[in-house]
Amino acid sequence: MKFARNAQSLDASYIREILSAANQPEMISMAGGLPASSLLPVELVRATCESLADNSHLFQYGNSQGFGPLLDTLQRSSKTQNPWLICNGSQQALDLIARALLEPGDQVIAEMPAYLGALQVFQLSGIKVCPLMSSTSGPDLDQLESYLKGGNIKLFYSVPDFHNPTGRVWSTETRIAVAKLCRHYGVTLVEDAPYRELRFAGEQLDTVSEHCPELSISLKSFSKIGFPGLRVGAMSGPADFIAVAERIKQATDLHTGIPQQAMIEALLNHPEFSEHLTRLRQGYQSRYQHLSDALQQQLGDLVQFDTVEGGMFVWLTLTQGNSSDVAARALQHKLAVVPGAAFYPADMALENSALRLNFSNTEPALFPEAVNRLAQALQPMALTA
Amino acid sequence: MKFARNAQSLDASYIREILSAANQPEMISMAGGLPASSLLPVELVRATCESLADNSHLFQYGNSQGFGPLLDTLQRSSKTQNPWLICNGSQQALDLIARALLEPGDQVIAEMPAYLGALQVFQLSGIKVCPLMSSTSGPDLDQLESYLKGGNIKLFYSVPDFHNPTGRVWSTETRIAVAKLCRHYGVTLVEDAPYRELRFAGEQLDTVSEHCPELSISLKSFSKIGFPGLRVGAMSGPADFIAVAERIKQATDLHTGIPQQAMIEALLNHPEFSEHLTRLRQGYQSRYQHLSDALQQQLGDLVQFDTVEGGMFVWLTLTQGNSSDVAARALQHKLAVVPGAAFYPADMALENSALRLNFSNTEPALFPEAVNRLAQALQPMALTA
Repeated sequence: MKFARNAQSLDASYIREILSAANQPEMISMAGGLPASSLLPVELVRATCESLADNSHLFQYGNSQGFGPLLDTLQRSSKTQNPWLICNGSQQALDLIARALLEPGDQVIAEMPAYLGALQVFQLSGIKVCPLMSSTSGPDLDQLESYLKGGNIKLFYSVPDFHNPTGRVWSTETRIAVAKLCRHYGVTLVEDAPYRELRFAGEQLDTVSEHCPELSISLKSFSKIGFPGLRVGAMSGPADFIAVAERIKQATDLHTGIPQQAMIEALLNHPEFSEHLTRLRQGYQSRYQHLSDALQQQLGDLVQFDTVEGGMFVWLTLTQGNSSDVAARALQHKLAVVPGAAFYPADMALENSALRLNFSNTEPALFPEAVNRLAQALQPMALTA
Repeated sequence: MKFARNAQSLDASYIREILSAANQPEMISMAGGLPASSLLPVELVRATCESLADNSHLFQYGNSQGFGPLLDTLQRSSKTQNPWLICNGSQQALDLIARALLEPGDQVIAEMPAYLGALQVFQLSGIKVCPLMSSTSGPDLDQLESYLKGGNIKLFYSVPDFHNPTGRVWSTETRIAVAKLCRHYGVTLVEDAPYRELRFAGEQLDTVSEHCPELSISLKSFSKIGFPGLRVGAMSGPADFIAVAERIKQATDLHTGIPQQAMIEALLNHPEFSEHLTRLRQGYQSRYQHLSDALQQQLGDLVQFDTVEGGMFVWLTLTQGNSSDVAARALQHKLAVVPGAAFYPADMALENSALRLNFSNTEPALFPEAVNRLAQALQPMALTA
C-alpha cells in the first residue's frame, strides 16, 4: 500500500521505544509521564464501577459533545461561559484543534523543548512549528512578538504550568504579556494544562486563558489527576470553535465513551476528591524531594537543574557529555530516561545536553539507586571496566 | 476564529438533527442506527465491571495497538495472520484509514446510497467520492471496473453485509468478482461489516476480504453486537498498514481506553456470548417481521421494499411523493425516519423517493402505530383536515 505523505513521515516515537525498553525486568523507568500507579484513585470510582451494569443506558450511543453530567460538572467549575467538548484525552483535543483551525503549511508557535505529542499532531497535519525559546520565567517575549509580527502565525501552543519536559512555570507577568500579545495580533492561544493541579509548593497563578478567553482554547486532562487508562479529557473555547470541533469529533469517532465519562464525573464529584489531590501532591512532593536529594548528593557538579514546584518532571542539564549517549548508556544500566533531543522536531536538533527525569511514577525509595545508575551512565569509562 | 476549509464544510449531520427531534416526548424513532436497549448484554459484563476497581493496572496508560487480551481474542478468531488495531469504534478506523492512505483530492469509490459517517470522514479529509450504483445483489460491477480502469482510485469503501442504509447483501459471485477486480487494479478494499453478525435468515457468506486479504482492511464493530456506548472497535489489515495506522492512532489519542477494552474482551469470551447473539438475532427478526407485516397491511401499494435477512434497516421506496417531504411530515406525526437524500454527498442529490427505517431500536408492539403515523405522513391532505 502507498501511504499518505504526512502519515509516512510520522516517526515511531523515540519515547515509545524507550518505554518499550522500560518494561524489561529490573529496569527503573523515569522515562514516561505516568502518574504513580499506587496513587490512582480507584477507590473513589469503585461504587460507580460496581453499579455500571445496573445503568444499561450508559452503554447505548451518546452525544458527540459529551455526557451531560460531566459537561455540567466542568461548566460549574469554569470561570467563563465557554462551552466544553469531551475528548479521548487532551491528546485528541490537540488533534481536533489542528483539524478545525489549521491547513497544511500553516505555522504555529510552540515553546522549545516541546511536548512530543503536540509535535506529532502538528506533523500529522503538515503544520510548520516555529520554535520559541524559553527560560525559567516562561517564553522569550521578544521572539514571540517577532513571530506574531510576521503575520503568518495561526496559533500559539503553550504549557504554562509545569511544562513538559522542562517543569517550568510562567510568571504572572509573562502570562499577562502573552495574553496581551495574542490579543494584539489576533492569534489563538492553546493552553495545555495537564499538570496544573499538581502544584506542591508555591502559589497557584491565573491561567493565561483567563486574560484572553475570547481567543483561548483551554485543555483539560484527567490523566494526571485521575485515570490515564480511561482516555477522557476535555477542552473549552469560544462557542463557534467548539461547534466546529464537535462536528469533527462526530466524524472521527462519534463521541467519547459514556461509562468512562461517568467514572470521571463520579471522581470529580466525589466528596474525597480534594483529599485525593492533596495526597497526590504530597506523594509527588516526596518523590521529587527524594530525587532532588539523590541528584545533589550523588551527582554534584556533573548536573544542574532548576527546582520545580509541581508537575512530574525535572529537566537535568549535564555539564559534560552528550545526553543521547548518556540515555543510551543508562538503559544498559537498567535506567530509562529521555534525552532532550526527543523533545524537538526531527529537523531541529537543538539540544544535546539535557535529560528529562520523571519522578511521579517511581517509588521514593528507589531514587538513590536510580541516580546511582545515572551516575554510572555519566562515566562512560566505567562501562569497559 | 478562522476555520480550516474541510472542517468548515463539514455539515451538521441531517441525521443528527432528526435524532435530536427524536428525543421529543411521544416520538417513535426509527431514525437512528441504535441497537435495542433492552437487548444490550450488560449481564455478561457485570462481573468485569464489578471487579474493575480491583484491577487498578487497567486505569494506567496502555499500548497504542490495544489491550493484549482483546488483541489475542481477535487474532484467535481471524482467518488471516493480519494484525489488529483497536480503535474508538470502527468510525475511528475509517478516519485512520483516510489519514494513513489518502491525500486531499484523492478519489475513493463508495456504494450509493452510503453510510453517512464514511462520507463525513472522506469530506473531512478532502477526498472525492465516486458514487457506485448498486442493486439487490451488490454493486454495479461494470461501473466499478470503469472507475478502476480510470487509474485514479485509491480505495473502495464497501459494506457487503446488510448495507446501511439499504440492508442489501452482496451475492457470493459479486464478492469474488470485486476481490478479483481489486486485485487486478491493485486497489485497497475497505470492508466495513458492523451488521454482519446480525443475520437472522439465510446463509452467512464469505467476507470479501477473505478473497483478497493482502489488499483488504477489515473493520470490526462491537457497537451492534455489544455496546455502542463504550466506543470500542477494531480493524485488521496488512502489517505495514497497521503499523502506520497505529502511529497515527498514537498521535491522535495515544490509545483506546483500557477498562472499556477489558469489558469487550470479557463479552467476547463469555460462555453465554453466542446465546446472546442468538437472542439478538431472534429479537431483530421479530422486530423486522412486525414492521414488514405492518408495512404490507397498512401501506400496500404506496411503498415497495426488498425483504432483508438481517441487519437493522429496511429501505422503503415510495411509489409517489418526495421522501424528504414525507420525513418532515412524519416528524409532525411523531415518527422519526431518515429520507434517502441524507445518504448521498451534499452535492449529489440522487434520491428523493426512499426512506430508511430502522427496526432494531423499536419495541415490536409499536410498529403498527409507527406505520400508522407513516401512513398519515404519506397523505399530505390529511394534515390540513
